[in-house]
Amino acid sequence: MFSCQTKVKLHHTDAAGVIFFANQFTMIHDAYEMILDDIGSSFSEMLNDKDFFLPIVHAESDYLAPVTVGDILTITIKVGNIGTTSFSFEYTLVNQNKLLVGKAQTVHVTIDKKTKTKIKLPDEMRQALEKYIEN
Amino acid sequence: MFSCQTKVKLHHTDAAGVIFFANQFTMIHDAYEMILDDIGSSFSEMLNDKDFFLPIVHAESDYLAPVTVGDILTITIKVGNIGTTSFSFEYTLVNQNKLLVGKAQTVHVTIDKKTKTKIKLPDEMRQALEKYIEN
Amino acid sequence: MFSCQTKVKLHHTDAAGVIFFANQFTMIHDAYEMILDDIGSSFSEMLNDKDFFLPIVHAESDYLAPVTVGDILTITIKVGNIGTTSFSFEYTLVNQNKLLVGKAQTVHVTIDKKTKTKIKLPDEMRQALEKYIEN
Amino acid sequence: MFSCQTKVKLHHTDAAGVIFFANQFTMIHDAYEMILDDIGSSFSEMLNDKDFFLPIVHAESDYLAPVTVGDILTITIKVGNIGTTSFSFEYTLVNQNKLLVGKAQTVHVTIDKKTKTKIKLPDEMRQALEKYIEN
Repeated sequence: MFSCQTKVKLHHTDAAGVIFFANQFTMIHDAYEMILDDIGSSFSEMLNDKDFFLPIVHAESDYLAPVTVGDILTITIKVGNIGTTSFSFEYTLVNQNKLLVGKAQTVHVTIDKKTKTKIKLPDEMRQALEKYIEN
Repeated sequence: MFSCQTKVKLHHTDAAGVIFFANQFTMIHDAYEMILDDIGSSFSEMLNDKDFFLPIVHAESDYLAPVTVGDILTITIKVGNIGTTSFSFEYTLVNQNKLLVGKAQTVHVTIDKKTKTKIKLPDEMRQALEKYIEN
Repeated sequence: MFSCQTKVKLHHTDAAGVIFFANQFTMIHDAYEMILDDIGSSFSEMLNDKDFFLPIVHAESDYLAPVTVGDILTITIKVGNIGTTSFSFEYTLVNQNKLLVGKAQTVHVTIDKKTKTKIKLPDEMRQALEKYIEN
Repeated sequence: MFSCQTKVKLHHTDAAGVIFFANQFTMIHDAYEMILDDIGSSFSEMLNDKDFFLPIVHAESDYLAPVTVGDILTITIKVGNIGTTSFSFEYTLVNQNKLLVGKAQTVHVTIDKKTKTKIKLPDEMRQALEKYIEN
């Protein structure tokens, strides 16, 4: 599993006083970009140098408790499932009081950048992701 | 059903050239705020004047085709399910070429603003929502 | 002058109950994308089909009165100054009560997309912009 | 002076491949929230517990070089000027190659939360800010 911490900023919140629900998705994507660094790749490298891209085809979030500015969230990612062309990340968000405040999932599919069609998940990426599967 | 149109702006997109996935959630929330106007209420009124609030406890999106700056999206909302304390909206996003580019769902629960606890969905809201259930 | 209307959405606001200051910049850029449609070009066309790009090299905003969710803003743009390689837009934001709530400016410079260097503002763009200079 | 580092995320960028100009403002506000922690206060505390608030009445940015996903920015803040009711922050953004990529300024005014009128900057805040004035 991979974990990172983030402090909720004013721009994550809305006039209801808590984070705007779409920003939970932004925060988990920030964590996804950090797991790519941890893998030894980087989002920038994938965007610019690789032949494939991993667009999100499905995303979902559960909101379990209010999150507001100044909260310190620990976002943990594990790899949920690896298929032939796709895989999923599963995220938990826990606040500074050890309260589970949110859960999320993103499903990514491997796309060839030139043909824009689905391709087999490259072996290097598959092997890197397997380290984050929870047993 | 309720429909509205929106033109994808630069700020919805990211360096991959298409909309950032979290912004599909922002766009459906914009549509949700518009359906409240259609109902004869408004988001502002709910935020400031009502005793209850309807926070999102679950949200999900499917991404079916690339969406980019300048695309004109028709977002259609129907009410998927109405329970005792909660209900769901189901969204479809269709582009200017009649292509279904995305689907989404939000689940809302009724919260008493003072006690912060779940309460029965008010009758006025239930009746308003029932008009948007697809038969 | 060019004017457009926008309704402030929840995602524009923050936990202080009013729009997050950076979102006034997002809103004026939305208006800038609309003036390009009015000119007969479009942001999408400029991004994808033109040899030049008009990046913002300076932006500023004044915040004169609180703006909150549900407010209906009329954003008016005029062209402030046209130089050899650059020009500026000047924006005013007026709410539903005719109150001037904000002012803003963006300065754009013409860049050749291939060489990434400053070039002369194309005549077609200069002529289009001249229509929006206030006399 | 106060400095912090931030890694540019995908959500900061747009389809032109670089950060969306409004997001430079979001990033400097993140840094402002961090300087409040450094002062020994916090944005959350100011929002919830203090009698005064420090809304931004003017903001401006210069964009000196392209910034893209994965760039590591060092944001440095100094206090530019302290008046009776207001003060300014001046920001510089330097990338991983020591290149100055942006500059920014925010002007804040002290508002009494109840009366919503301008008041004298509290002494505690004045003293805290004075430490960040460059000599």
